[in-house]
Amino acid sequence: METTEKFLDYVKKMQAYTEAIGLMYWDLRTGAPKKGVDQRSQVIGTLSSEVFGMQTSDELATMLDELGSNLDSLDSITRKTVEKVKKEYDMSKKIPADEYKAYVILTSKGESVWEEAKEKSDFSLFYPYLKEIVETNKRFVSYWGVKDDNPYNTLLDEYEPGMTTEILDEVFGELRKKIVPLAKKIADSPNQPKTDFLFKHFPKDKQQQFSYDILKQLGYDFDAGRLDATVHPFATGLNRGDVRITTKYDENDFRTAVFGTIHECGHALYEQNISADLEGLPLSTGTSMGIHESQSLFYENFVGRNENFWKHNYETLQGYAPEQFGAVSAEDFLAAINESKSSLIRIEADELTYPLHIMIRYEIEKGLFNGDMKVEDLPQIWNDKYEEYLGVRPSNDAEGILQDVHWAGGAFGYFPSYALGFLYASQLKAAMLKDLPNFDELCANGDLEPVKNWLTDKVHRHGSMKKPLEILTEATGEGLNATHLVEYLEEKYGRIYQLD
Amino acid sequence: METTEKFLDYVKKMQAYTEAIGLMYWDLRTGAPKKGVDQRSQVIGTLSSEVFGMQTSDELATMLDELGSNLDSLDSITRKTVEKVKKEYDMSKKIPADEYKAYVILTSKGESVWEEAKEKSDFSLFYPYLKEIVETNKRFVSYWGVKDDNPYNTLLDEYEPGMTTEILDEVFGELRKKIVPLAKKIADSPNQPKTDFLFKHFPKDKQQQFSYDILKQLGYDFDAGRLDATVHPFATGLNRGDVRITTKYDENDFRTAVFGTIHECGHALYEQNISADLEGLPLSTGTSMGIHESQSLFYENFVGRNENFWKHNYETLQGYAPEQFGAVSAEDFLAAINESKSSLIRIEADELTYPLHIMIRYEIEKGLFNGDMKVEDLPQIWNDKYEEYLGVRPSNDAEGILQDVHWAGGAFGYFPSYALGFLYASQLKAAMLKDLPNFDELCANGDLEPVKNWLTDKVHRHGSMKKPLEILTEATGEGLNATHLVEYLEEKYGRIYQLD
Repeated sequence: METTEKFLDYVKKMQAYTEAIGLMYWDLRTGAPKKGVDQRSQVIGTLSSEVFGMQTSDELATMLDELGSNLDSLDSITRKTVEKVKKEYDMSKKIPADEYKAYVILTSKGESVWEEAKEKSDFSLFYPYLKEIVETNKRFVSYWGVKDDNPYNTLLDEYEPGMTTEILDEVFGELRKKIVPLAKKIADSPNQPKTDFLFKHFPKDKQQQFSYDILKQLGYDFDAGRLDATVHPFATGLNRGDVRITTKYDENDFRTAVFGTIHECGHALYEQNISADLEGLPLSTGTSMGIHESQSLFYENFVGRNENFWKHNYETLQGYAPEQFGAVSAEDFLAAINESKSSLIRIEADELTYPLHIMIRYEIEKGLFNGDMKVEDLPQIWNDKYEEYLGVRPSNDAEGILQDVHWAGGAFGYFPSYALGFLYASQLKAAMLKDLPNFDELCANGDLEPVKNWLTDKVHRHGSMKKPLEILTEATGEGLNATHLVEYLEEKYGRIYQLD
Repeated sequence: METTEKFLDYVKKMQAYTEAIGLMYWDLRTGAPKKGVDQRSQVIGTLSSEVFGMQTSDELATMLDELGSNLDSLDSITRKTVEKVKKEYDMSKKIPADEYKAYVILTSKGESVWEEAKEKSDFSLFYPYLKEIVETNKRFVSYWGVKDDNPYNTLLDEYEPGMTTEILDEVFGELRKKIVPLAKKIADSPNQPKTDFLFKHFPKDKQQQFSYDILKQLGYDFDAGRLDATVHPFATGLNRGDVRITTKYDENDFRTAVFGTIHECGHALYEQNISADLEGLPLSTGTSMGIHESQSLFYENFVGRNENFWKHNYETLQGYAPEQFGAVSAEDFLAAINESKSSLIRIEADELTYPLHIMIRYEIEKGLFNGDMKVEDLPQIWNDKYEEYLGVRPSNDAEGILQDVHWAGGAFGYFPSYALGFLYASQLKAAMLKDLPNFDELCANGDLEPVKNWLTDKVHRHGSMKKPLEILTEATGEGLNATHLVEYLEEKYGRIYQLD
């Protein structure tokens, strides 16, 4: 079928441009000289416009129409590609070009105003922009189409296809019901871990060596990636043979690099192990933000904070920083890296309280799009919720409503992915235990190949061929639920803080 | 004039693609993971096809026709841009597409066969490819048009606009007449420098620090570039604010890194100091291979091998490698880094004998295209010429005719640029001395800003706005001649080897 060939060539070309753009972004963040940035931005702009043009062209529309009416006759890869590209086409095409352009300018301006507002800790500066950004998103939702009177579902679906407030309300509710009292008990426990030894000077080059050790152990393929240092760690899959990660070395808190590296490695393993059949196609990437985050959090929390993992690695760490850890017992070390404490800042939160930070944002987003929450009331609402869920109250906007950039960029519906990732991960872990009952032993032996292979089989290789909830159900036999995560948190923190 | 706008947007888009391709090549050479290379090559291929398509499109032809008939009404930048793009259009368009495609495959195959042939030191393997590559180039020359019965001039013009065999025969002849006996006298001189201390172990990180010191001193702008390590050093100007260089660290021969770094820095200073008016246009790059090489060789030879430069830097070098140089006098050091000795391999040649390597290649290329030299006879011709000019005879093809990759890639007419660069540089140096009679003092003080500023004024800022011989004549008041280079070489080597 000639149209199929033509369509695949067309999307491969878009994908090629996207890969080139991806490399330019990576380069900008890892060491591009600053005087070249303006011109490089022009180049990125030129290629991005080209991709946008191709994504919304009449030529594409004609091909999509023709292929869309014969979906059943297509092989599964082509069919999924058509579906994914069609969704993006619709999303882009339904917004009038001039409105989209104005929105790009608005959010770009919004991000820089947000930065200033955060610096001055003054929400009023950011307020008019945020209001306009929310209004615009409401309009976009109406263009895209609201199902069941639930505009926020339209936004959720953008990042997590198939996700709804109905599902989230239930699992988040369940989770909150368990986490809030658990966090309270921990705060009141007399058995608080010692943590002072965490903050000693750990030279960057030693941290780097340890990062390399860990990455090799987790199965990160250095022939298909590289590790660099950046201010904010990230992973970027340019193609399945080139999945780069970065980490940040804080010489006074080694945890930043270690857990950052493990987290990004989880993302990278996903992208490195996508099936070769999908190479060059838009399907050759993770299927959603939430599933992606499930891979990074699986490694960060279920491997990296697991006591068995440290049975294998603590001695190595001590070797890199003998003065810091030589006299610290493995038990004290483990308690310290698993300390839980309610705090104000999401990105500094521990694994127990982290989901509460997400739920607060989720409830606000839902209130803005489905309810009658007003942007002007957000600082108050934010602070009240922090007090209610976490028992802490921000004393200013910078450590409250202004802490995250997401809304300034218009990313509504994105936050839930972070908590969803943790939920997915805990369900995958429970399912994995059935096939690998010796999971802890594998960690203790530094033999993580079977763990990676299991995840590759259930998650990685599929790329975007399956939807998030399809992946979850096929891998675990269950729909989304909070049971496993709650059990994990209750068992672990009960033990560390010797509760009951 | 609407076409002008449209044309400039069009060429800026081509330039943007070219910049993206440039970054991908840089990345491939500095650390891209190997498993991603195949897919990255596809991406480069996609973007390159796009550029080629734009470069030869009817849309471009129409604009070029319209603007070409009104050249006088255009501002100078647009006019030069039209001229440059028109030349490239003609070059590309005059070759039938299928012949060009076959040629790309031929040279690509040619390069890999050359590699094998060199490894096995067997010209006969490479012979059929080289023959075909030469034949194809002869045909291309006929498509492009032969002026004055001189096909080789057509090839020269591709790399060095305006250059002819008439000019080269004269200056190369003059140069050879002086260099050959000088090299002979040096070989016979009893005053040979000691060099054993050059080859001691010099740790990579110390070499790197010294490279940074030198680059800063030469005026390389680290906000508009970066230094990395590669197997073959190179400079790449992605845009004037992003001009990257690489060097190679040989721990047993520090000269590789030091002189490689200085050489590439010369290229980089050119690209960093092109006028901002040309940003984003194809004029925002050096005007020719020869002028580019004049900048790298100016710094490598007239600065980097100058005794005054080392008055300022030798102590620093000693500080980085005290065991290696602590007991070596500055005089011995200087003699050692200026040792001259006839050798077989071009890229290892010293500055005195280097031009002879080039002339041999020039005479062969001229013989192939203008005369009746046969590809099958090249090994014999090559060896005879080495014996005649340099007094050394290759004992096999690998160290003779097969040493360079250039011809395998079809680059005929390129080699002369290397020697031209040295000639240009010596003429620029003589002219510079009129404005900066204290040149040696500046070197001795490590104050190289005035040197860079002079070169920026006369060469760098113009980008491709002026032709090579225009640059030369305006900067020096002279046409190409060998006088200054001969004087320099005779004075310098006479002194070092205490001749006469």
